[in-house]
Amino acid sequence: MLSHDEEIVQLVLFLGYRGTHFSGFQAQTGQRTVAGELSFALETLFKRPFELVCAGRTDAGVHAQGQVVNTAFTQVEQSLFSRVRLKKALNALLPDDIVVYKVAFYPPQFSARFDALSREYVYRISLHYPSLLAPEASWFVSGELDVEAMQQAAQVLLGEHDFTSFCKSSSSVDKNCVRTLQAIKITKKNALGETYLEIRVVGSGFLHNMVRIIVGTLVEVGKGQREADSLTETLLACDRRCAGRTAPAQGLTFSKVRYPYIRALRSNKE
Amino acid sequence: MLSHDEEIVQLVLFLGYRGTHFSGFQAQTGQRTVAGELSFALETLFKRPFELVCAGRTDAGVHAQGQVVNTAFTQVEQSLFSRVRLKKALNALLPDDIVVYKVAFYPPQFSARFDALSREYVYRISLHYPSLLAPEASWFVSGELDVEAMQQAAQVLLGEHDFTSFCKSSSSVDKNCVRTLQAIKITKKNALGETYLEIRVVGSGFLHNMVRIIVGTLVEVGKGQREADSLTETLLACDRRCAGRTAPAQGLTFSKVRYPYIRALRSNKE
Repeated sequence: MLSHDEEIVQLVLFLGYRGTHFSGFQAQTGQRTVAGELSFALETLFKRPFELVCAGRTDAGVHAQGQVVNTAFTQVEQSLFSRVRLKKALNALLPDDIVVYKVAFYPPQFSARFDALSREYVYRISLHYPSLLAPEASWFVSGELDVEAMQQAAQVLLGEHDFTSFCKSSSSVDKNCVRTLQAIKITKKNALGETYLEIRVVGSGFLHNMVRIIVGTLVEVGKGQREADSLTETLLACDRRCAGRTAPAQGLTFSKVRYPYIRALRSNKE
Repeated sequence: MLSHDEEIVQLVLFLGYRGTHFSGFQAQTGQRTVAGELSFALETLFKRPFELVCAGRTDAGVHAQGQVVNTAFTQVEQSLFSRVRLKKALNALLPDDIVVYKVAFYPPQFSARFDALSREYVYRISLHYPSLLAPEASWFVSGELDVEAMQQAAQVLLGEHDFTSFCKSSSSVDKNCVRTLQAIKITKKNALGETYLEIRVVGSGFLHNMVRIIVGTLVEVGKGQREADSLTETLLACDRRCAGRTAPAQGLTFSKVRYPYIRALRSNKE
């Protein structure tokens, strides 16, 4: 793609998308994907193919408000547009369900994936009634949920654990299932006049379906179908069958990625 | 429909709907309407036609979270289902974009329309970027809005005025255009991780398109296209052409109706 002797920078895109009509982030032949749409927009502007690295590969139906993507860019390409104009051009070329919030240029060694310090996901559950105003952005759970029991159960998951029980069983990607969960916060919220339960998780990284299996398991606790103090056992079992069902994709939003202080990164270059 | 010598009660439904795929509340031949769907569900259960009275006839595309509807019901019909079962049966028969929140029985003289003390509407504007998670529940206004100027301009509208300038010009329904605006509140809100400007208005009643024309006019003030103190003149002109454009339907939600203390109403009967 780029010859090795060209000086490169990383083009970094901060973006959001509505996952509803995408077969996930990652490019797949014959499927509508976020990477596919982004590559198409970049190719239209720069007349060459692009390989994209993202902070988190979201599955089909999962939304993003804080996805970060990088791709190698020549300094000649960088000089063609200002950051503001490139953002405008990309948003004009992209479909309505993807938005580029910010365009940046980082040093060549930057990786949206490997430099991430932590990732944050939000899972939204509609309470009482299915959401009327944002029907594709939450999972409706009928009946009462014991939020205190859910909160108590969730504490066990904090820290470093082998999360095999909370990983899609057919996952070939995740060999080492040890991850660190830094925070998990469950809050009732009113949004657009409707009531949601928001489960916000922060961790170094997440296994395939990990957030959705955690949510599905916590909902079983909330419904009284599973003891609040049973999650220690679930973790120790290292067996996907011991955790709850996988909550549906539409409730999940990839909300934030934290990187080491960006000025430190940029100072390598500027 | 009901013979005069039968003892009747008013069946009262508190409901919400997503206006996106409705040609408004009011039944219209050949159109998908909220009243049409409600009547169909009631007819399915009770094998006779129903005439519905609503607190506010919302236009095509306008949402509701606090619509109130009443229809005359015989005491025999009332005895067929408990309120909880009737609510369940209606929700099972209704499409996904209508939800019955509550079923009640009020005395025969109750009218959802004429007994309303006040009505509340919320208009949502997406700021910075079009909403990804609730794309059909707001109007995206690009660029900066001077919220203070909007707030200042809005104060002029409070109280009793002839709102002819803020009424759809072709409206044949609204002969007397004097209305009382009891409150107007403009607030920046974060909902589902996105930023909205919420314009909440409360009044005794509203003319056709009145809230949407008020919002369209305030947005022109917010963009600096119209002076904040110009709305006195706009009111005095009594001319639709003096107000701003009509804001699109999708940002509007009919959020609440207030009635005189309901126990007082019910005491007539119980």
